[in-house]
Amino acid sequence: MLINCVAYRHGLKVADIDVAAISDVITVPGTFVWVAYRDADDEELRAVQKEFGLHELAVEDALHGHQRPKIEEYGDTLFCVMHLVELGPTDELRTGEVAVFIGPNYVVSVRNRSAQGFLGVRQRCEGEPHLLRQGAGFVFYALMDAVVDRYFPFVDALETELEGIEEQIFERGAARHNIQQLYAVKRRLTVLRHAVVPLMDAAAKLHGGRVPPVCRGTGEYFRDVYDHLLRLNGTLDALRDTIGTAIQVNLSMVTIEESETTKRLAAWAGIFAVATAFVGVWGMNFEHMPELTWRYGYPLALLIIAGVCGVMYWRFRRSGWL
Amino acid sequence: MLINCVAYRHGLKVADIDVAAISDVITVPGTFVWVAYRDADDEELRAVQKEFGLHELAVEDALHGHQRPKIEEYGDTLFCVMHLVELGPTDELRTGEVAVFIGPNYVVSVRNRSAQGFLGVRQRCEGEPHLLRQGAGFVFYALMDAVVDRYFPFVDALETELEGIEEQIFERGAARHNIQQLYAVKRRLTVLRHAVVPLMDAAAKLHGGRVPPVCRGTGEYFRDVYDHLLRLNGTLDALRDTIGTAIQVNLSMVTIEESETTKRLAAWAGIFAVATAFVGVWGMNFEHMPELTWRYGYPLALLIIAGVCGVMYWRFRRSGWL
Amino acid sequence: MLINCVAYRHGLKVADIDVAAISDVITVPGTFVWVAYRDADDEELRAVQKEFGLHELAVEDALHGHQRPKIEEYGDTLFCVMHLVELGPTDELRTGEVAVFIGPNYVVSVRNRSAQGFLGVRQRCEGEPHLLRQGAGFVFYALMDAVVDRYFPFVDALETELEGIEEQIFERGAARHNIQQLYAVKRRLTVLRHAVVPLMDAAAKLHGGRVPPVCRGTGEYFRDVYDHLLRLNGTLDALRDTIGTAIQVNLSMVTIEESETTKRLAAWAGIFAVATAFVGVWGMNFEHMPELTWRYGYPLALLIIAGVCGVMYWRFRRSGWL
Amino acid sequence: MLINCVAYRHGLKVADIDVAAISDVITVPGTFVWVAYRDADDEELRAVQKEFGLHELAVEDALHGHQRPKIEEYGDTLFCVMHLVELGPTDELRTGEVAVFIGPNYVVSVRNRSAQGFLGVRQRCEGEPHLLRQGAGFVFYALMDAVVDRYFPFVDALETELEGIEEQIFERGAARHNIQQLYAVKRRLTVLRHAVVPLMDAAAKLHGGRVPPVCRGTGEYFRDVYDHLLRLNGTLDALRDTIGTAIQVNLSMVTIEESETTKRLAAWAGIFAVATAFVGVWGMNFEHMPELTWRYGYPLALLIIAGVCGVMYWRFRRSGWL
Amino acid sequence: MLINCVAYRHGLKVADIDVAAISDVITVPGTFVWVAYRDADDEELRAVQKEFGLHELAVEDALHGHQRPKIEEYGDTLFCVMHLVELGPTDELRTGEVAVFIGPNYVVSVRNRSAQGFLGVRQRCEGEPHLLRQGAGFVFYALMDAVVDRYFPFVDALETELEGIEEQIFERGAARHNIQQLYAVKRRLTVLRHAVVPLMDAAAKLHGGRVPPVCRGTGEYFRDVYDHLLRLNGTLDALRDTIGTAIQVNLSMVTIEESETTKRLAAWAGIFAVATAFVGVWGMNFEHMPELTWRYGYPLALLIIAGVCGVMYWRFRRSGWL
Repeated sequence: MLINCVAYRHGLKVADIDVAAISDVITVPGTFVWVAYRDADDEELRAVQKEFGLHELAVEDALHGHQRPKIEEYGDTLFCVMHLVELGPTDELRTGEVAVFIGPNYVVSVRNRSAQGFLGVRQRCEGEPHLLRQGAGFVFYALMDAVVDRYFPFVDALETELEGIEEQIFERGAARHNIQQLYAVKRRLTVLRHAVVPLMDAAAKLHGGRVPPVCRGTGEYFRDVYDHLLRLNGTLDALRDTIGTAIQVNLSMVTIEESETTKRLAAWAGIFAVATAFVGVWGMNFEHMPELTWRYGYPLALLIIAGVCGVMYWRFRRSGWL
Repeated sequence: MLINCVAYRHGLKVADIDVAAISDVITVPGTFVWVAYRDADDEELRAVQKEFGLHELAVEDALHGHQRPKIEEYGDTLFCVMHLVELGPTDELRTGEVAVFIGPNYVVSVRNRSAQGFLGVRQRCEGEPHLLRQGAGFVFYALMDAVVDRYFPFVDALETELEGIEEQIFERGAARHNIQQLYAVKRRLTVLRHAVVPLMDAAAKLHGGRVPPVCRGTGEYFRDVYDHLLRLNGTLDALRDTIGTAIQVNLSMVTIEESETTKRLAAWAGIFAVATAFVGVWGMNFEHMPELTWRYGYPLALLIIAGVCGVMYWRFRRSGWL
Repeated sequence: MLINCVAYRHGLKVADIDVAAISDVITVPGTFVWVAYRDADDEELRAVQKEFGLHELAVEDALHGHQRPKIEEYGDTLFCVMHLVELGPTDELRTGEVAVFIGPNYVVSVRNRSAQGFLGVRQRCEGEPHLLRQGAGFVFYALMDAVVDRYFPFVDALETELEGIEEQIFERGAARHNIQQLYAVKRRLTVLRHAVVPLMDAAAKLHGGRVPPVCRGTGEYFRDVYDHLLRLNGTLDALRDTIGTAIQVNLSMVTIEESETTKRLAAWAGIFAVATAFVGVWGMNFEHMPELTWRYGYPLALLIIAGVCGVMYWRFRRSGWL
Repeated sequence: MLINCVAYRHGLKVADIDVAAISDVITVPGTFVWVAYRDADDEELRAVQKEFGLHELAVEDALHGHQRPKIEEYGDTLFCVMHLVELGPTDELRTGEVAVFIGPNYVVSVRNRSAQGFLGVRQRCEGEPHLLRQGAGFVFYALMDAVVDRYFPFVDALETELEGIEEQIFERGAARHNIQQLYAVKRRLTVLRHAVVPLMDAAAKLHGGRVPPVCRGTGEYFRDVYDHLLRLNGTLDALRDTIGTAIQVNLSMVTIEESETTKRLAAWAGIFAVATAFVGVWGMNFEHMPELTWRYGYPLALLIIAGVCGVMYWRFRRSGWL
Repeated sequence: MLINCVAYRHGLKVADIDVAAISDVITVPGTFVWVAYRDADDEELRAVQKEFGLHELAVEDALHGHQRPKIEEYGDTLFCVMHLVELGPTDELRTGEVAVFIGPNYVVSVRNRSAQGFLGVRQRCEGEPHLLRQGAGFVFYALMDAVVDRYFPFVDALETELEGIEEQIFERGAARHNIQQLYAVKRRLTVLRHAVVPLMDAAAKLHGGRVPPVCRGTGEYFRDVYDHLLRLNGTLDALRDTIGTAIQVNLSMVTIEESETTKRLAAWAGIFAVATAFVGVWGMNFEHMPELTWRYGYPLALLIIAGVCGVMYWRFRRSGWL
């Protein structure tokens, strides 16, 4: 579905134009076209492909989707795939995609399986004509910057969630809940890593050293995006490390708790075993057991039993078993 | 066993020819020969070796099989070994091989220990003469693309399987089954990694920088294959990481469950120990135990025992032990 | 908030000047200006930006804060972000920032969310005019050196803390406390790693090979800072490794202790089970149990029971279960 | 001990010669000498050193032994150390060494602490004069190829052993045996890794890029050896990974089994505790316990107890505890 | 404290000289001075600094100590810090340092916190004038070689210790002792790694490629030292890996032993529970229990109980629980 097809000249919007008219418009120097599709079908993409002479393999990637983030050069064209992450209905993270073709005088973005639009980016760009006049490379930067900025809230949410788990990691009885949550956080982390890490690797080639022609002159902007990706990557790495340690610590806590339970069990079992042995003694049927006939034999027996159990309780208590 | 030996000129099939006739045919400019063997024996390979002057070491690798995936240059010839993965009778993954010799005007593929043919690849190539006219390099690409594409269903199957395990990883009593399945998935993963990782490393040399002569002009195709391998590798890495975490989590769940069992055991043991101690008390043979002669002593005793046990049950219940 | 704005010529302080006067002062050869802000607001930074022509992206980073440590070149300007680590009210580590702009004849430092000032650095620099005359690059070195030196006490504190934990890691009953402390140390370690590792990577570019113009001639100083960062990094890596092993060892100790507890429990349970079985035997109501009528049947029974239990106790003791 | 000292000219054996005569023989163009020692003593090596002018440090390494595998260049001489692995008397792997000096017209091999000879290599070389005429570099290749080929059976044995362990890893009661075997496999793996990995790193420098003069022209052979080492390394890495997972899985299985044992213990303990409590009730000495006087009180009591225990047994059975 | 200050000319000792006289002596071509300090104070080092014009930063490092091993170039001077490891009074490893300044015609070594002297090195050098005439670079090599050679006994001791632990890792009841020893070995390993790894990284720059001027001509000697460091590093890596596995295996053994204990506990508990239930039955007070009046009721009862317990014992025994 075509969302927008606008021609810009020297940073200023010229007009909404028809896709078929593109090839005429972009012959004028200083002009470039910015086309945006959402879930484009085969026919639409074939039309754009003919208009700009896009490479077969890149168009197929944009059509089929489910690519890993990447930036590829085809002659003087760049083809970029980025992941769009959003929250699914049951709180899991879902991954959509935006494929961007960048040529000397055009930018074509094709968004798939995602509700996140880029109208805001277009508006911001149109509001800064002195930047937009840098052409297609700047538009590419603006799109990439927007995509990357949208990762931050998800990473922040993971950090908050993990901090929440960390606060109750030493609480008794929370182990099952903690481990489930840690596993859920780990899965979200994996989705985000898949979005961030390959894009970071790819973005490193857009500044410094040999830079694709359409990105020349905007190197400092792309370094800024790259820096954001590095920051995201650093945070994700730290999260991953923390999750690993937290799982280990959680397992330790479960084992420690079980050890404490075993000790308490042992203590109580011991106390009652002693009581049972004592009452068993006076339940024996020997004829000559003088204490059985004493006037206060019974209360004395109870007292002795209570006394012994009391001493045991006190000693277990002191040694921390109870 | 020879499967096919066909000469092509300017992308069009000329004729099925005899292996012995090859050296005559390929002298015509714009002609190349595509020969396919299955489980070739020594004699057959020696014939081809003589026809094309293949290197001794490469021919030996093709004969002996059990090589790791690799791409080697011998002068202007490329020698490539790729793994063919297929499902064995008892659901384990088996690895076959295809060895490919690529020269300026020939492609020889030798398939070993695998039922997967490449007839479909040949047909598709013959249906696109404008691509096939690029020669041996393109045929090599088509074969490699087909091999790599066949890895995806296996990796997808692993992902599905792992998701199935993940769904029941927090279920009680599933630990033994889970760990067995995780181990099975890990083993399949290892087979796939052996197919993918070395091929990815080797394929990186077929585009960008210095490229072997027979692959020149088809660099973008090989980059596409490389990109698929990168994607596979990324997925396999993520699977590996997930399996590792899942094994850890599974162990945690077992320990947590055992801890819960221990607590329940402790609780019930406690309740019955108290009951046993009480009945033992009234089973003692002291002469002066007034309650034994009471009219309602017995039901009272039972009531007291039931009451104490009830209170204990209620407290254990409240603290989550029962 | 502006803290200081001083002009220096040939290593000697000229005068405190007004921010607006900077552009006039720095036209004199051999002169540079050193400006220091704390929690600067938008207006202040915009003023400096205009004065020195700082790059938009760098100024925004300095304003927004929460950057990872980095050193970026913008033309002949360097932009550096470093973390300032300090102890929060509840003993956790908090991270502030200092952003530094270094140009041919100016240094601007902007400190955010931190109480650590750099007045001492300025005083020390002013006390060594022969070094200060090297200009902005030397000031940058002095600031960086001060920041890095302040990391050492924190790392030393971590080492001391970890040694304290290690001393009691084999003590019985300390497991819960140890694991909590290890986790706390791990978290502090993460904060310090975030400060040190990216700065180390960035600082590597300030000596040897191609060096930014403002740092030329002071390469040996920056190598010294880099060496300090390497040392910190080495210590942090070793700490991380030790924490990992310590968590594992702690888990082992818990399991060993539980195993010992289980054995002791088993031993005592066995002893009392035997006693209970014996007294139960003589509590049976068979008519023909001759020992029940013996004169010394009762004491004999008690002796037998005590004897059997004693033997068991002695054997358990010998085999290390008690 | 000198084993062999033979001069070759244009790939053909000239004669067994005396060590002292070497310097005369090798002045003839196209001639080289191949000398083989076993556990050479100081005197012998000093003689060869003088004959060929070998470097002091290399000779010392050959004398002292216990080197890691390596390839070093001394001027136009190569010095190579390779590990020879063999089975010790108690099934553990032992490491011997062969040190090889390769010059323009000589090869000297010194074997230490190993029963594996290289006579077969010499015979095979002498049987292929067209290859042997390539000179010392080819002899070096033949030795290295033989050494590397002898690693394969050991690695295959490890794989078979590990598969044997894997088959019984989910068997009950095999844990102790499994973990011992896994540890033994791990130790053998370490010995093989020490032989393979450094040699692989060193062998990478013998083909492609800058190659030592004596190996020129035989690059494809050394690439083949390197490829074998890569394959060995890949297998060893996979084994290491599998052992790690297997140890983890084994630990999980032990914990699962213990958990099952605990449950069974809990179930039986519960059943008997109930029975004991019941019989204790009817063993109380209250005067007014009407059921005690019933005609069929006793069998009824036994029936009740059996019934309750039966129900418990059935419920435990159903929930998988028994 | 000054230990030695000797001038050498063409490899031969000239005389012990005064530090103040150095600058005069070293003007003679072919002369160099070798000065050795132990725990030098500020004044002494300042004197040497003035004599040779050493760099401020290097002198400070030598004064303050506690540096990581490193090699730094200051113009045509090399500054090297190496760790000296020795056994402390309570068997832990302590780290001292030696800082070496190497210039075109001087070597200054400053030893700190260590009892290990280098007189032996000096004597060996003086005994080989043909080597010593190579100048300061050779002295540096001799010192480094001596330092590195002193690491081997410590690494060997660790290996022996670890083998000792490995021998008893599968012994019952040794877990606590093993884990303590493993942890101790790990700590020593860390100390040695800190000495070896950074020095290895630094030493790599002393041969091959671009080499500091003072080390030229002695490249093969430094490659030898580097090779020793590589070997140490390889051994330390293997030790680290083995310790990790051993800790894991030890944990497994503890869990397995606990599992065995639990089984034995369960078995004995079961046997006694059955006996207790039986005697409880015949301890009930029902009036109509015919077997109680049988002549041989009592011995029969005992026989039945013993029989049932015997059968249970035999079955537990057979299934490996006892």
